[in-house]
Amino acid sequence: MSLSFEILARSGHARTGRLHTPHGVVPTPAFMPVGTAGTVKALHPEEVSGTGARMLIANTYHLWLRPGPELVASLGGLHRFMRWPHAIATDSGGFQAFSLAERVRLNEDGFEFSSHLDGSRRLLTPEESMRVQGLLGSDIALQLDVCPPAGVERPVLVAAVERTTRWAERCLAARAPGQGLFGIIQGGTDIDLRLWHAEALGRLPLDGLALGGFSVGEAPQSMYETLDRVVPFVDPNRPRYLMGVGTPTDLVRAMAAGVDIFDCVLPTRNARNGQAFVTGCRLTLKYARFRDDPRPLDEACACPVCSQGFSRAYIRHLYVAGEILAHRLLSLHNLHTYASLMASARTAIHEGQFEHWAHVQLAAAGTPGSAENRE
Amino acid sequence: MSLSFEILARSGHARTGRLHTPHGVVPTPAFMPVGTAGTVKALHPEEVSGTGARMLIANTYHLWLRPGPELVASLGGLHRFMRWPHAIATDSGGFQAFSLAERVRLNEDGFEFSSHLDGSRRLLTPEESMRVQGLLGSDIALQLDVCPPAGVERPVLVAAVERTTRWAERCLAARAPGQGLFGIIQGGTDIDLRLWHAEALGRLPLDGLALGGFSVGEAPQSMYETLDRVVPFVDPNRPRYLMGVGTPTDLVRAMAAGVDIFDCVLPTRNARNGQAFVTGCRLTLKYARFRDDPRPLDEACACPVCSQGFSRAYIRHLYVAGEILAHRLLSLHNLHTYASLMASARTAIHEGQFEHWAHVQLAAAGTPGSAENRE
Repeated sequence: MSLSFEILARSGHARTGRLHTPHGVVPTPAFMPVGTAGTVKALHPEEVSGTGARMLIANTYHLWLRPGPELVASLGGLHRFMRWPHAIATDSGGFQAFSLAERVRLNEDGFEFSSHLDGSRRLLTPEESMRVQGLLGSDIALQLDVCPPAGVERPVLVAAVERTTRWAERCLAARAPGQGLFGIIQGGTDIDLRLWHAEALGRLPLDGLALGGFSVGEAPQSMYETLDRVVPFVDPNRPRYLMGVGTPTDLVRAMAAGVDIFDCVLPTRNARNGQAFVTGCRLTLKYARFRDDPRPLDEACACPVCSQGFSRAYIRHLYVAGEILAHRLLSLHNLHTYASLMASARTAIHEGQFEHWAHVQLAAAGTPGSAENRE
Repeated sequence: MSLSFEILARSGHARTGRLHTPHGVVPTPAFMPVGTAGTVKALHPEEVSGTGARMLIANTYHLWLRPGPELVASLGGLHRFMRWPHAIATDSGGFQAFSLAERVRLNEDGFEFSSHLDGSRRLLTPEESMRVQGLLGSDIALQLDVCPPAGVERPVLVAAVERTTRWAERCLAARAPGQGLFGIIQGGTDIDLRLWHAEALGRLPLDGLALGGFSVGEAPQSMYETLDRVVPFVDPNRPRYLMGVGTPTDLVRAMAAGVDIFDCVLPTRNARNGQAFVTGCRLTLKYARFRDDPRPLDEACACPVCSQGFSRAYIRHLYVAGEILAHRLLSLHNLHTYASLMASARTAIHEGQFEHWAHVQLAAAGTPGSAENRE
């Protein structure tokens, strides 16, 4: 097995450790920036690693369609292609079957997509997903899974869980030599089903266990309750990865339940929309009150953007004028903010102070869930 | 006078020297990256200075409308606003009266614009242009000038030249203390008129003499002939600045005539269109033949993009996928290419080898003018 995971300290259910990969060590809890098409949007790979990130996640579905995994493989694999020397995870394409649902037909074999680029018919099976991820050469592949939207009937959730388990077995049989593979626990906010699925996947020789099917429309409080009741029962010796979540508050709550790895588009997507994550809130820079604000985005922040003296007024000007530098500076700041939150959590866990630390973080963010949206 | 210019060596008509400004020394010949709205598009100011650029040019018209010069002044001036510690020139807005001609009415007082942002009526006079440039705090202001398109009748050129001279006097009377001011020689491709205007402006206490009204539709060869016959008669003790020009070939030809300073949008605009300037040609990356090309943009280039191993195939993928990193990497490479051309020219002039150097450059680029468009 090319991946190994060691836990160095615990504080409550929260853990800190090291995930060893063929491309270096990833300290956990870790936040993975999202590099869908083989680039973290608007950023240079050295800027991404400068935030402290040691693993990013790219998208199998998108790279499958463009530029194609054979091309990436012929150029030495995804690490070399995108000049990222650290670890890479690739998700399986299962989430795109949810997010691009109108383009998808699902059966036991896999997903039949019509490409969002040219409408061509493509069949994504567990085997094809593993073949693509093998060609990309990611350190961690994700199994193909079935991710139902929030609010579906229990039989739909049960069917998704059962098929996802069968697909995990097919992915294990098809995976490339030396590539890590994580299973994906589904079950929506149904605690019993989640626990059942965690146990079923835990019996398979997967290198880690992901929690999928969150941030698909359910209330934040409902996600927190599910995590609190499920995560402590996910095999504690393997890394636990909460997919596609979330706000800083979400991350603190999930670490408290024992999650080790995260990814989310929020820091980069909100940058594109002119939003900065700062201590306790989000700044929406289009607001006129920032027009002449000489302060950095966050006076408590040590990131290059804040320490080099770029003002809120200047970044607002760039954003209003449609200048790319706005997107760059906000993405860089936001990823630094997320990476700093993770580093601070790791320290708190090492010191056995996670509960106090989390309390301070959540108090700064105000009420849970949508708290960071105030401003 | 806050600006001073010293010539260190000559080779034929070409000269190399130092322009001393309140924000440092600019080695000439110099190429100024264009930072229209207070940012060189897609780049961080440290990346721009990393190319070797020591002066950029921002746009008075655009900053006048947004964010407004009072705001920039209240935040410490343009250098501080955009975190650029080196020299800044600002053009006067005269060129926008050409490029946005359908929005403009011209009379002796100045230009009446309807804003391209909100349609509001704005009057740009020589005095208003100097007031705005004073508030921006640029090291070098440009006078407001009248820039006719190519192909107009001689009386139109004569009227433009005469009004531009009167406006130069008004700008001198209105300029902010300590700010450098360049006049702008007009006259199209009419040699006599250009020479007459160069002499008329040369009699005024301007800190430098710019050549406007090129790249407005005339043939490259026609510009080269005009430069060859006019530039040597522009006061040799003052810096000569050719506005808005051009391709690498254009720059070599103009340096041969004795031009010291340039600006042009080509390196950054062509980056946005997926073009890389490389030795002797331009690469248009959307072409399918770059799809699997593992080479750097230019194997002879020492810029960060080429030396960090980003392949043509990867940059093409980013461009086709609409990713900002394509624009970043191409802009950075192209500005490095332009800065390297300038540094190489300065060395050649110091060594008294400019003619030979220029011959090699022009031979590499093939036939003059549109030569860089071949592949």
